[in-house]
Amino acid sequence: MPVSGRLTVVGIGPGPADWVTPAATAALADAKELFGYGPYLDRLPVTLGQTRHCTDNRAELFRAEAALTAASSGARVVVVSGGDPGVFAMAAAVCEAVEHGPTAWRQLDIRVEPGVTAMLAAAARIGAPLGADFACLSLSDNLKPWSLIERRLRLTSEADLVLALYNPASKARPDRIGTALALLAELRGGTTPVIFATAVGRPDEWIDIGELGTCDPARVDMRTLVLVGARGTRIIARPGLPPLVYSERFAKEA
Amino acid sequence: MPVSGRLTVVGIGPGPADWVTPAATAALADAKELFGYGPYLDRLPVTLGQTRHCTDNRAELFRAEAALTAASSGARVVVVSGGDPGVFAMAAAVCEAVEHGPTAWRQLDIRVEPGVTAMLAAAARIGAPLGADFACLSLSDNLKPWSLIERRLRLTSEADLVLALYNPASKARPDRIGTALALLAELRGGTTPVIFATAVGRPDEWIDIGELGTCDPARVDMRTLVLVGARGTRIIARPGLPPLVYSERFAKEA
Repeated sequence: MPVSGRLTVVGIGPGPADWVTPAATAALADAKELFGYGPYLDRLPVTLGQTRHCTDNRAELFRAEAALTAASSGARVVVVSGGDPGVFAMAAAVCEAVEHGPTAWRQLDIRVEPGVTAMLAAAARIGAPLGADFACLSLSDNLKPWSLIERRLRLTSEADLVLALYNPASKARPDRIGTALALLAELRGGTTPVIFATAVGRPDEWIDIGELGTCDPARVDMRTLVLVGARGTRIIARPGLPPLVYSERFAKEA
Repeated sequence: MPVSGRLTVVGIGPGPADWVTPAATAALADAKELFGYGPYLDRLPVTLGQTRHCTDNRAELFRAEAALTAASSGARVVVVSGGDPGVFAMAAAVCEAVEHGPTAWRQLDIRVEPGVTAMLAAAARIGAPLGADFACLSLSDNLKPWSLIERRLRLTSEADLVLALYNPASKARPDRIGTALALLAELRGGTTPVIFATAVGRPDEWIDIGELGTCDPARVDMRTLVLVGARGTRIIARPGLPPLVYSERFAKEA
């Protein structure tokens, strides 16, 4: 029998309230204790009787353990995640904490509420760049060596996959996206479409549509999702309107 | 200036109403003409004054052209897509129709409303299998040769990416998932975790968690999303509860 506590990892999407699913909203309303990165918690309506535990963005494992501890004592706990909890977000940290934590944590009622992850929101803003086979990579080298990231950039280019790049820059390493884009320009050609989608859905949203050979990596920051085209990615010019970008559904051998 | 018509491609998620975003619900309510695959349209509440155009699931380009024609005559049109419109769904077909259609279509107000795509919902049900770098491939060989699919299975295995496989089977070719899983077992090893998530979020949902070497591809049908683990994908046994599956956030060179 599971113990009485419940922990739900809830995805609140990239920003606006109207991209939060009703299931996520219901899970948030039902929680007694909320754990999350401060700016995510700040987006949520205040509910009477709830306790909020804000933690630093980088302290994923610490946050997961604190939330599991609270759930073990019988509380209904929500861990708040930006975007979708399963894509470079809190669900994996919670599972990791369960695997390496006290046996009792395996008996908790653990749930995940999916959400709109950044690459889907970014793609929706400009057309359908993820309309063909694609890969989704984190450029953060906190958790894996840069040599592995580079190898994955090479192999996914050889496979001609569209790329969605998460965590393209951090305060500590603002330059890694420049290194990655220079390598991708070499592998895919300088005229390959590239999109910088920053703060999608928020008031300061802006989107750059350009080419690998001439784009400016300095325009990428922590809030940016980067999309890199494959051979079938097309830009449709529209006089007086932003272009549409999409990846052809059909493909042939190189 | 855009012409007065508007076309919005709306993602309604994998099934349940509480996974449809409020933004998608608002776009649906505002439409005068709805285009979509019958079973998707059947999920939506009937709204007075709306016209519904049901088309066959395989007729994506035809449906996109019909919707664009309706929008050109000034109507507020919605194309209904399962999951997220940008992932192996209707947004790319609409863009393709715009690129190859009458110039006037480029002046339409074209929007995409993102949704929860099947892989996010499937992952959420079992933990965080997409918690590390991953690729998202369609196994349908209607639009690309099987040799290219096989090459992508090889290269993404060499890159040690988790895989989300869409369109794993069809009535015409029920066996392609068997061929793919046999190849992946050879490339990744028979003990690699594999998940068959069928009809996620619907009353007939069922989820198999197994290993590549011993799983039964006959349990995969058109409604199944297949997830294949990477080296860092872990299964956490939980006595009396379904296991949790997640992919470790950290990785090292092979």
